[in-house]
Amino acid sequence: MALRGPLSRLLRTQLHACQKSRAHSVAILGAPFSKGQKRRGVEHGPKAIRDAGLVERLSNLDYPVHDFGDLKFQHLEKDEPFRHVPFPRTVGQANKLLASAVSRAIDAGHTSVMLGGDHSLAIGSVQGHAQQCPDLCLIWVDAHADINTPITSPSGNLHGQSVAFMLKELQDKMPDIPGFSWMKPFLSSRDLVYIGLRDVDPGEHIILKNLGIQYFSMRDIDRMGIQRVMEVTFDHLLARKQRPIHLSFDIDAFDPSLAPATGTPVNGGLTYREGIYITEEIHNTGLLSAMDLVEVNPTLGASREAVEITASLAVDVIVSSLGQTREGAPVTYQDESASKEDTEQLRL
Amino acid sequence: MALRGPLSRLLRTQLHACQKSRAHSVAILGAPFSKGQKRRGVEHGPKAIRDAGLVERLSNLDYPVHDFGDLKFQHLEKDEPFRHVPFPRTVGQANKLLASAVSRAIDAGHTSVMLGGDHSLAIGSVQGHAQQCPDLCLIWVDAHADINTPITSPSGNLHGQSVAFMLKELQDKMPDIPGFSWMKPFLSSRDLVYIGLRDVDPGEHIILKNLGIQYFSMRDIDRMGIQRVMEVTFDHLLARKQRPIHLSFDIDAFDPSLAPATGTPVNGGLTYREGIYITEEIHNTGLLSAMDLVEVNPTLGASREAVEITASLAVDVIVSSLGQTREGAPVTYQDESASKEDTEQLRL
Amino acid sequence: MALRGPLSRLLRTQLHACQKSRAHSVAILGAPFSKGQKRRGVEHGPKAIRDAGLVERLSNLDYPVHDFGDLKFQHLEKDEPFRHVPFPRTVGQANKLLASAVSRAIDAGHTSVMLGGDHSLAIGSVQGHAQQCPDLCLIWVDAHADINTPITSPSGNLHGQSVAFMLKELQDKMPDIPGFSWMKPFLSSRDLVYIGLRDVDPGEHIILKNLGIQYFSMRDIDRMGIQRVMEVTFDHLLARKQRPIHLSFDIDAFDPSLAPATGTPVNGGLTYREGIYITEEIHNTGLLSAMDLVEVNPTLGASREAVEITASLAVDVIVSSLGQTREGAPVTYQDESASKEDTEQLRL
Repeated sequence: MALRGPLSRLLRTQLHACQKSRAHSVAILGAPFSKGQKRRGVEHGPKAIRDAGLVERLSNLDYPVHDFGDLKFQHLEKDEPFRHVPFPRTVGQANKLLASAVSRAIDAGHTSVMLGGDHSLAIGSVQGHAQQCPDLCLIWVDAHADINTPITSPSGNLHGQSVAFMLKELQDKMPDIPGFSWMKPFLSSRDLVYIGLRDVDPGEHIILKNLGIQYFSMRDIDRMGIQRVMEVTFDHLLARKQRPIHLSFDIDAFDPSLAPATGTPVNGGLTYREGIYITEEIHNTGLLSAMDLVEVNPTLGASREAVEITASLAVDVIVSSLGQTREGAPVTYQDESASKEDTEQLRL
Repeated sequence: MALRGPLSRLLRTQLHACQKSRAHSVAILGAPFSKGQKRRGVEHGPKAIRDAGLVERLSNLDYPVHDFGDLKFQHLEKDEPFRHVPFPRTVGQANKLLASAVSRAIDAGHTSVMLGGDHSLAIGSVQGHAQQCPDLCLIWVDAHADINTPITSPSGNLHGQSVAFMLKELQDKMPDIPGFSWMKPFLSSRDLVYIGLRDVDPGEHIILKNLGIQYFSMRDIDRMGIQRVMEVTFDHLLARKQRPIHLSFDIDAFDPSLAPATGTPVNGGLTYREGIYITEEIHNTGLLSAMDLVEVNPTLGASREAVEITASLAVDVIVSSLGQTREGAPVTYQDESASKEDTEQLRL
Repeated sequence: MALRGPLSRLLRTQLHACQKSRAHSVAILGAPFSKGQKRRGVEHGPKAIRDAGLVERLSNLDYPVHDFGDLKFQHLEKDEPFRHVPFPRTVGQANKLLASAVSRAIDAGHTSVMLGGDHSLAIGSVQGHAQQCPDLCLIWVDAHADINTPITSPSGNLHGQSVAFMLKELQDKMPDIPGFSWMKPFLSSRDLVYIGLRDVDPGEHIILKNLGIQYFSMRDIDRMGIQRVMEVTFDHLLARKQRPIHLSFDIDAFDPSLAPATGTPVNGGLTYREGIYITEEIHNTGLLSAMDLVEVNPTLGASREAVEITASLAVDVIVSSLGQTREGAPVTYQDESASKEDTEQLRL
């Protein structure tokens, strides 16, 4: 497909921003928001993740790290439910704000790291990323598919519907929900891969099957092993062309024994090693451009320790996505040849 | 082999009962019995499993569920040990009662779900199943082989000898134990597969090897992976012909961290995901005809939580055996085309 | 290579000692030592491991077991740090004593089992083993590579430098550390394999890569599976020729959830089953000649239970290395035909 004229120039500009975004400075965006579901506490996720040492751990990787603090979301007073969907305008407006912030972070050359907050925030995070990088692909690591429409959703909660807002193929299945007029579906279902599913609603299952979405349930991971799952994931998303990756990581993808402080835990989740393997592999592509880490809810842990291991796991996921390795060789793209002198004495 | 006359008609009748049994109504039979071993408490297993929500969880699968309550077992006053085997007549009589109940449940067209109680109950459960379905095969998921004879058994406990009572090939190694004159060995050793073994007595090892029984120890699972183990299991049992499956699942097959409330825990057991994978695969054959879930002992958990996770795990095993999936598509054989209208709006 | 004269005779003598050492009596050597690092308590490791039932568990394997008690190590009063390396003379002298004890145990025909103590003790244990068996190979199971030199070490602790003292290829990178004049590097880097690495310092990573050392990080285990890891390990070490194996097992190779009572735990470690699989495979070679079990620190567990599970795990590793199986057939090389009569009645 050969593009000409203004659109072509626009795309070239946007691709340039994406390339900058992979130049490896990191922007941290706190998103203390919980209106995509009904349990309170998940708005304290950003603080818990920071308290677990995020910035210090990232600084070990020699990235310039910019913590932009927390976004200020508003809870709208007048926000009647849409059908059984609560807080539609509040969620819509929060995501509009977040989209703008993520877009600016990418445009400024950062890799965007959004700290949730509930998973409804992915709507804004991925949309903002897509403003700069329209050809992005999305890896969604989660126990849940979050692909209900307002009509199929058993609970009505928008954190279980995020993906449905993004997909072009679902456009005619989506009613006009107040609060979301600022955005249009922007993602093709073939540009999405799920990893970790194990609690999928019947309506979601039908959508996944009808759209032919590539997903790896825990059963698939049991069958194939995580190594093969990642191979097929990249084959599906990147074989045609290299392009920016958005990683949207719900902490409940992990087994509840590892991530107890979260709102909708489901038994039989990812092991620590599987989660880290996923992120190492994504880092190794060199294409990670933005990520979300969501659903850490510090009020839900049964103990202080339960909260700490959950938040600490979130930090491990983020630093591993950004290049920390288990083999002592943190590769960062800007400084591969750095510290050569230090090691000269060890050359044999 | 062409059968003629009354035997042929009898077999056809029996096969018909087995086919009915796969028509997917479920009979729950509680078996509060603990005299197959020396620790008390396992007779409360059926209540613990029901309290963990069994019937409600099964009802999500759209099966007709019939809970027939608990069988009434008698503890015989006059029941001297046979050699070092305690309570032989009590165990024998309980199993006779259970066999009759299971046989009737199968004959009535149910899939039989027996809630133990200790694993000596498998003698009656499998025998009753075999009354209706003489060509059944047996999948035994357990840390232990339960194949000691009264002579090889170190402890004497009958819950460690259940399989020896069933096998035709061991008939001449078995003494005449009081309480068991009502039954004869009925199973060929080639129609049995073990999964999960990791605490096998030397005498049991010799029996397994001499009879050439197909087993998968935890070491085998480590080597082959659970996916391959299930493939070989079905190849061994079903390649020659499709036939009813009896699943006898001892909760101690799981790692003690997952199933602490049981009498003989052994480190290094199945993960949650492996256990669920086993049962999903068995369900997917469409051939499960009866199952046992045994050795949940609510008096042995170190805490209330330990008991609850064990009982809840037992429920997960049962509902997964009967068709609950991790991918949102509970397939039940009777209603594959049901709820089509509900989903029509989502067809793309 | 054909050797002639006295050297050839010497080698033949030494190989004979190694062969004796595989004749399966076991020597237990307690090494209550903690000066290879800064946390106290690990000197109580030998007692904790014995209290967890080591000797009784080994006796089930029908080995003659000789517990030689604990070595008496001295803490030298006058022992200034060398650069930032603490207690160099104390560590050096302890290892000299241990080397002598291990050498005598091997020479007497035992398989040597050294109970640490911290991992600096491997210097003496492997060196003593090599005195008798100069062609040994080394399998190092550990979260850490322990291959820092005094110059690269961030902490200075000698328990993180043990391997560097052994390797011929690092000889010119090692300063003259007081306390170690009694020994010379004796191991070629190609005769070493690591399993379990996940916390490797940058300087260590460079050494591993420059020397081309065969290692399997947790990431490699995630990719390949433990079965393949062991195949490649033996292919690397034993394909050219069969020779004695020294297994140096740091309990922190296991996940901290399994081995909490240790000084430098790192998330994402070996599962119980992986650890047991490693040791089963090593036993099955018939070549295990000496082993270390180190870094059990009973003062670091958060609870009594944490200490007990760690010490019990250490016992499981040792008895599995020496032949306990999960399949009920403890193979000991001396008595393969024993107890034949007992089993005669079961022959079919």
